[in-house]
Amino acid sequence: MNHKLLYIFGPNLNLLGERETSLYGSMSYDALIKKIAEESKKRGVQTEFFQSNHEGEIVDKIQQKRKEIDGIIINPGALTHYSIALRDALSAVKIRSIEVHMSNIYAREEFRHHSVTAPVCWGQISGLGWIGYILAMDALILKGIEEPIRLA
Amino acid sequence: MNHKLLYIFGPNLNLLGERETSLYGSMSYDALIKKIAEESKKRGVQTEFFQSNHEGEIVDKIQQKRKEIDGIIINPGALTHYSIALRDALSAVKIRSIEVHMSNIYAREEFRHHSVTAPVCWGQISGLGWIGYILAMDALILKGIEEPIRLA
Amino acid sequence: MNHKLLYIFGPNLNLLGERETSLYGSMSYDALIKKIAEESKKRGVQTEFFQSNHEGEIVDKIQQKRKEIDGIIINPGALTHYSIALRDALSAVKIRSIEVHMSNIYAREEFRHHSVTAPVCWGQISGLGWIGYILAMDALILKGIEEPIRLA
Amino acid sequence: MNHKLLYIFGPNLNLLGERETSLYGSMSYDALIKKIAEESKKRGVQTEFFQSNHEGEIVDKIQQKRKEIDGIIINPGALTHYSIALRDALSAVKIRSIEVHMSNIYAREEFRHHSVTAPVCWGQISGLGWIGYILAMDALILKGIEEPIRLA
Amino acid sequence: MNHKLLYIFGPNLNLLGERETSLYGSMSYDALIKKIAEESKKRGVQTEFFQSNHEGEIVDKIQQKRKEIDGIIINPGALTHYSIALRDALSAVKIRSIEVHMSNIYAREEFRHHSVTAPVCWGQISGLGWIGYILAMDALILKGIEEPIRLA
Amino acid sequence: MNHKLLYIFGPNLNLLGERETSLYGSMSYDALIKKIAEESKKRGVQTEFFQSNHEGEIVDKIQQKRKEIDGIIINPGALTHYSIALRDALSAVKIRSIEVHMSNIYAREEFRHHSVTAPVCWGQISGLGWIGYILAMDALILKGIEEPIRLA
Amino acid sequence: MNHKLLYIFGPNLNLLGERETSLYGSMSYDALIKKIAEESKKRGVQTEFFQSNHEGEIVDKIQQKRKEIDGIIINPGALTHYSIALRDALSAVKIRSIEVHMSNIYAREEFRHHSVTAPVCWGQISGLGWIGYILAMDALILKGIEEPIRLA
Amino acid sequence: MNHKLLYIFGPNLNLLGERETSLYGSMSYDALIKKIAEESKKRGVQTEFFQSNHEGEIVDKIQQKRKEIDGIIINPGALTHYSIALRDALSAVKIRSIEVHMSNIYAREEFRHHSVTAPVCWGQISGLGWIGYILAMDALILKGIEEPIRLA
Amino acid sequence: MNHKLLYIFGPNLNLLGERETSLYGSMSYDALIKKIAEESKKRGVQTEFFQSNHEGEIVDKIQQKRKEIDGIIINPGALTHYSIALRDALSAVKIRSIEVHMSNIYAREEFRHHSVTAPVCWGQISGLGWIGYILAMDALILKGIEEPIRLA
Amino acid sequence: MNHKLLYIFGPNLNLLGERETSLYGSMSYDALIKKIAEESKKRGVQTEFFQSNHEGEIVDKIQQKRKEIDGIIINPGALTHYSIALRDALSAVKIRSIEVHMSNIYAREEFRHHSVTAPVCWGQISGLGWIGYILAMDALILKGIEEPIRLA
Amino acid sequence: MNHKLLYIFGPNLNLLGERETSLYGSMSYDALIKKIAEESKKRGVQTEFFQSNHEGEIVDKIQQKRKEIDGIIINPGALTHYSIALRDALSAVKIRSIEVHMSNIYAREEFRHHSVTAPVCWGQISGLGWIGYILAMDALILKGIEEPIRLA
Amino acid sequence: MNHKLLYIFGPNLNLLGERETSLYGSMSYDALIKKIAEESKKRGVQTEFFQSNHEGEIVDKIQQKRKEIDGIIINPGALTHYSIALRDALSAVKIRSIEVHMSNIYAREEFRHHSVTAPVCWGQISGLGWIGYILAMDALILKGIEEPIRLA
Repeated sequence: MNHKLLYIFGPNLNLLGERETSLYGSMSYDALIKKIAEESKKRGVQTEFFQSNHEGEIVDKIQQKRKEIDGIIINPGALTHYSIALRDALSAVKIRSIEVHMSNIYAREEFRHHSVTAPVCWGQISGLGWIGYILAMDALILKGIEEPIRLA
Repeated sequence: MNHKLLYIFGPNLNLLGERETSLYGSMSYDALIKKIAEESKKRGVQTEFFQSNHEGEIVDKIQQKRKEIDGIIINPGALTHYSIALRDALSAVKIRSIEVHMSNIYAREEFRHHSVTAPVCWGQISGLGWIGYILAMDALILKGIEEPIRLA
Repeated sequence: MNHKLLYIFGPNLNLLGERETSLYGSMSYDALIKKIAEESKKRGVQTEFFQSNHEGEIVDKIQQKRKEIDGIIINPGALTHYSIALRDALSAVKIRSIEVHMSNIYAREEFRHHSVTAPVCWGQISGLGWIGYILAMDALILKGIEEPIRLA
Repeated sequence: MNHKLLYIFGPNLNLLGERETSLYGSMSYDALIKKIAEESKKRGVQTEFFQSNHEGEIVDKIQQKRKEIDGIIINPGALTHYSIALRDALSAVKIRSIEVHMSNIYAREEFRHHSVTAPVCWGQISGLGWIGYILAMDALILKGIEEPIRLA
Repeated sequence: MNHKLLYIFGPNLNLLGERETSLYGSMSYDALIKKIAEESKKRGVQTEFFQSNHEGEIVDKIQQKRKEIDGIIINPGALTHYSIALRDALSAVKIRSIEVHMSNIYAREEFRHHSVTAPVCWGQISGLGWIGYILAMDALILKGIEEPIRLA
Repeated sequence: MNHKLLYIFGPNLNLLGERETSLYGSMSYDALIKKIAEESKKRGVQTEFFQSNHEGEIVDKIQQKRKEIDGIIINPGALTHYSIALRDALSAVKIRSIEVHMSNIYAREEFRHHSVTAPVCWGQISGLGWIGYILAMDALILKGIEEPIRLA
Repeated sequence: MNHKLLYIFGPNLNLLGERETSLYGSMSYDALIKKIAEESKKRGVQTEFFQSNHEGEIVDKIQQKRKEIDGIIINPGALTHYSIALRDALSAVKIRSIEVHMSNIYAREEFRHHSVTAPVCWGQISGLGWIGYILAMDALILKGIEEPIRLA
Repeated sequence: MNHKLLYIFGPNLNLLGERETSLYGSMSYDALIKKIAEESKKRGVQTEFFQSNHEGEIVDKIQQKRKEIDGIIINPGALTHYSIALRDALSAVKIRSIEVHMSNIYAREEFRHHSVTAPVCWGQISGLGWIGYILAMDALILKGIEEPIRLA
Repeated sequence: MNHKLLYIFGPNLNLLGERETSLYGSMSYDALIKKIAEESKKRGVQTEFFQSNHEGEIVDKIQQKRKEIDGIIINPGALTHYSIALRDALSAVKIRSIEVHMSNIYAREEFRHHSVTAPVCWGQISGLGWIGYILAMDALILKGIEEPIRLA
Repeated sequence: MNHKLLYIFGPNLNLLGERETSLYGSMSYDALIKKIAEESKKRGVQTEFFQSNHEGEIVDKIQQKRKEIDGIIINPGALTHYSIALRDALSAVKIRSIEVHMSNIYAREEFRHHSVTAPVCWGQISGLGWIGYILAMDALILKGIEEPIRLA
Repeated sequence: MNHKLLYIFGPNLNLLGERETSLYGSMSYDALIKKIAEESKKRGVQTEFFQSNHEGEIVDKIQQKRKEIDGIIINPGALTHYSIALRDALSAVKIRSIEVHMSNIYAREEFRHHSVTAPVCWGQISGLGWIGYILAMDALILKGIEEPIRLA
Repeated sequence: MNHKLLYIFGPNLNLLGERETSLYGSMSYDALIKKIAEESKKRGVQTEFFQSNHEGEIVDKIQQKRKEIDGIIINPGALTHYSIALRDALSAVKIRSIEVHMSNIYAREEFRHHSVTAPVCWGQISGLGWIGYILAMDALILKGIEEPIRLA
């Protein structure tokens, strides 16, 4: 099976490596993308990357790609905590999705403990740094062996 | 009196008919627009339709049209529950508006019971499916007989 | 199809036109009933009206009429906010019901924002004055075209 | 000025003298009425007494007497804490009212600390036993010297 | 000892067997009464049954019977969750009472988890269907062997 | 019996007649004291008046006078809502006290609905303007006929 | 049908008769077991008794016995209020269970009003002293007449 | 030192002078910009102005300008209360920022009392009308005398 | 116009420069007063300074000066968070006031985020160190150009 | 090492021995002081005692003594629960302090469970009667053996 | 009098000296026990020590020793915050107990501020490091001089 | 590097494959262990497995193994939501740990959304079924390449 995955990065994730490095590490956004691309190549998985600071653009993107992709790996950034529009988009399209956070959101400010998007994802990976993005890919591949990733 | 109404549809409403059909029914967004357009024609009402997944675009639209229209019929979708920016836009322009929800938001998840926009609208219709959009039009027409819809 | 609808008005709604007229308008309860009766006649709908200040009488009435009517249009007044008995009655009889409020309850005191009855109704119309009662009738007629109103 | 006052006693107040006497004292309901009647006679005030365990009957009574009386002295009993219907009735009729509690409700269970009716009364007297009913009468008489008691 | 028990059924319990049968079972109210009557006869217990949708009538009944009966078995229905008037009535009369719910109220909506009446009863039986009513009778009989049921 | 009562007025009550007159009326603090003094003279009651903006001075005063007085009539002003020190003082000295508020605190901001001092007073009078201070005196006199006011 | 029931008693219940006797009565744990054993013998029911102060041992026991028993009667003691592990055990094994409390937990401290285990039991009996344990047995027997107790 | 400041105005602030003038005053957005520009010229400060109804555009702008500017003066409008994305942007770029509100947000609706962005700003000015924007500039200039404004 | 301003400093502000210097900076209270005095002299403004650890003294001072001053600049220190007496004093006197905090109270402990005094001030400045006191003066001067500062 | 300790007693503690003796015991304030003085003499510790009903005086005292003393032993009385000013004073001066309560505050009213001052003390002793004051002294002495008590 | 005290240490306290030493200090569990043993020897007090990571074992121990000991000194560790079973055990046995925490639990995470066990102990000592264990022993000895420690 | 990992499974996880299979899948606990063992073998990682229904045993195990292992992969089961003892154990030993849940805990009952253990782990994986256990192993291996897993 030949998977096609969409990686989505929410607001401010383009500043990785520059922004609060004690929390997020020193790997830049470009280096991260390169890393994921290499790993997906190794696994024979097609990946598309999308970063935006706009909730609306992310919702648009999920809708536009909904017929072409097998899985979504998303770090909604701050939108995690209030974007019901994003939650509804993830729920409306019937694609298996995994929410990833690089930092452990449960070890940070109270308001970051709650995710409005996680309940409509297949699962969530939090706190494992850049590794989380690779694990999410592996999860979708492993799951795909048993059953098709597209939910509908 | 010749009314000019603006219909606004928030995030993910363009997926009507495809998205959670047990909640929202099987009528597509296009069919819905067509239905409303026919009904407004019967009543001699001019209607404009606008759908967007972007909070900012909806706020822009409300501001741009504020001198040209007599009433707003809006289903803010997920924005209902957190977009204070949309609330402020509806409150800033002095036009009679009605909030419409196709599903009964009070019979769904706890977080959907609260609307931040309803308090600044003239009223709210919830749960009557596509019919709600037609009723909202009739309400504005009936009200208009007594007094001009433009609030300012 | 020949509909038979039951209009129910809760506590203090008999004082309409005299009570807080800035909120509820100056139309008296009798004038309201007359208006609804005329509109229902135009539409070939049979209507029965019932007003009571007694929670128990309203529950009795819903139970007694449950085999004879096709729809319920109810403004539970203050009972909206605490009468679980009324909620259970509406839920127990299998008739499509619409909750109507003349004032926008979401623009009033905090304790009026919550309805215990709305979750078991088909929908709710709030804030459109006397017009809401007419719209509710139209909603039931329109819905009735597609499918029988009696739920059981 | 010749005042006409309505005394209303809510659920279970007819059991005074028998019910939890450490809280409410040993004076029976009949003895209380007699006491108030004597005191009102001394002051040249006409009084009517009404006790009911039915929220609906109390709301009915307030509505029926609203053109005949100058003031309401009410101990809503348990209804104090949840009867928004009673609150709306007191608010709808434009008569000066005083809420009286024989026990100090602030020294009892948490749920008795909150009154839904007090905010729409002129004032509240709590905790002074049977004396509260006499004081409320005096308050209405004293207020009446300055300005007419009927609010409308 | 010859017990005299009062069975009280709150709002909507007369619709048993017709109303939400997956929750309450298919036994009708009449069949339930017959069943309890048979069982009480076997045990030599006198029983009286009272069903009402009116809070006030239930309070009246408890007061009227307070000198004649040895125990109260009550399913307050929806009143369980807000009727402080009923709580006060059960507390004012000094008779041992048991609250019974046919469904497990702790496995239902959040607002049904809280009982305002249970704290003033001797105990509560929840979730055992019609059997609960028989068990409550047995509890009062067993307790009566040791000590008189009338509390005062 | 010859009563000796202490009237205590908390922070900002010395500005009566100048401060928010729509809430508190136009009677000045001096006029109020004069009024109460006249009324107490008529009733043969000795009164002492004390106003302070200092929580500590009020606590001191209550302690100092605790052996000389029969009753306390106190309007704690803003201290009502947070001064546990004042509550403890009222509770420590064993004198019957009545809390008085000129405005109806239940019809004002949410934070004014809660009194930390009321639970340790004999009772509370709220919302009857200057009349409340006279009624409180009468309550203590009437109570005194039956039993000595000094609690200890 | 020959029932096999497991009685489970949580932490500190072995101190019955010695511990807070005003709440729990003076019957010792051994006397209670003897009483239940006698009653079960009369009814031809096999019973096993297990008391432990260890959450883990109770979970172990439920798991070990899950194939051998028809019903569980459990007083989880303090575990009622926080042991989600116990809740999960009761939910995982598919056996009809009844939660019993000797004291009325709704008439005690606030934190004892909430049961985390009750929602996964068939029902709950609270406040009837030792009688509750017998009633629970009768409930399972009566239910068993209609349908097998083992849920799976 | 020659400062370069970025003024950001959130949703609906472009309607200043037209929108709720009793709250925000009658000065239009254009007049405000002109006023600030004049004042900044007097002080030898370079200013750039940016208004948007789009959360995403504001986040983009802050990121784009982060290397060119010395300070940010921002009125996030409604975004103040929920835009964690904006908070993260302000926190990610290491520039001293001041949050300004023209109205006193602590004297308005409850939900406007809480700012999600203020904790990551240097400070907040609320309620002083257009003057707040000038004061914020002065604060940054005065601070700049002591230490470089760029935080990184 | 010749302004007369009252600067008020609440509890512990006299320890500035010694107390938690990482939060409040190393400028002593005396140096701060001197700085403000110099700046007010430059602007032709008369200033009076008052520091106290006593809530009552601050309330007294506000009352005493209420006829002599044009504006109040107050840092209530810890009283910000609970002194309703101070709030009432600021509200009772009709003088324009500004609340100033040197540290950003929104970036500190949860309990410091809420100000009971801010809602009755004209505005609030938080987090700009000693600069806030100067800005507040400028705000009152700038406002004074348009309209008299004394509110009454 | 020769310690100098300041004992502080908050509002109403001067009434010890007279006030609620079941809670606080029958030892008078004077006897307590004498007891502590004797014990401190035995240990070669210098002690100063200060009691006040004024929050401001206690804050003043802590500030004045901050250079002369080695430790503070404080029972803030009611101030424990709301005096953030006292908390700030204890935090501002860098002296090791211990909070002492004679009664077990966790076994009393809900509002007494929370201490605003405890978090800035070294520790807290609650519920051991007069003994707590002696233990606190011993703690400071024992700690002093290892390291100097003055924190700064 | 010859006291016999039981020292109980909850989960993870065996790791003292290794675990978070900035909070708990560098003294190992063994060194602590040795220290306490020495001090008890000096005072002629018999002590037994028990550490367990098992809630059930601690409850067992308290029950087993309840006839042999005069006092309990317990640091329940994490169990402090949720073990109602431990609370019930301490309450069931009638022995004077003191709860000790080495760190100041009120200066740590929110969830550590609440103790479910403290309300049933005689008192609590929090934050004084190893010294707290010695003070608790002294408190029991001092108390014992006046009255026997065994409560029953 | 040759890793040694400890897999811990909390209460009821031994019933996998039998218990609520729609949530947890049909793979038995034994099959799961076998699967993980195979995968670890492939990766050259040593693994130890431990399942217990006893909080205390899990805490013991973590303490005992703390010097021998490089990483912990733990599914605490129900303990996730209340076992602060487990949290403290994970925090006390300085080993990198990952919390794994097979079901998506954010899509289940409200009380399962909160983890008391997650904040002290390196990260959390939720909702990916058995795959999560393998991913956690890979995460620890990948992290180990950069830096030693043992934290101390």
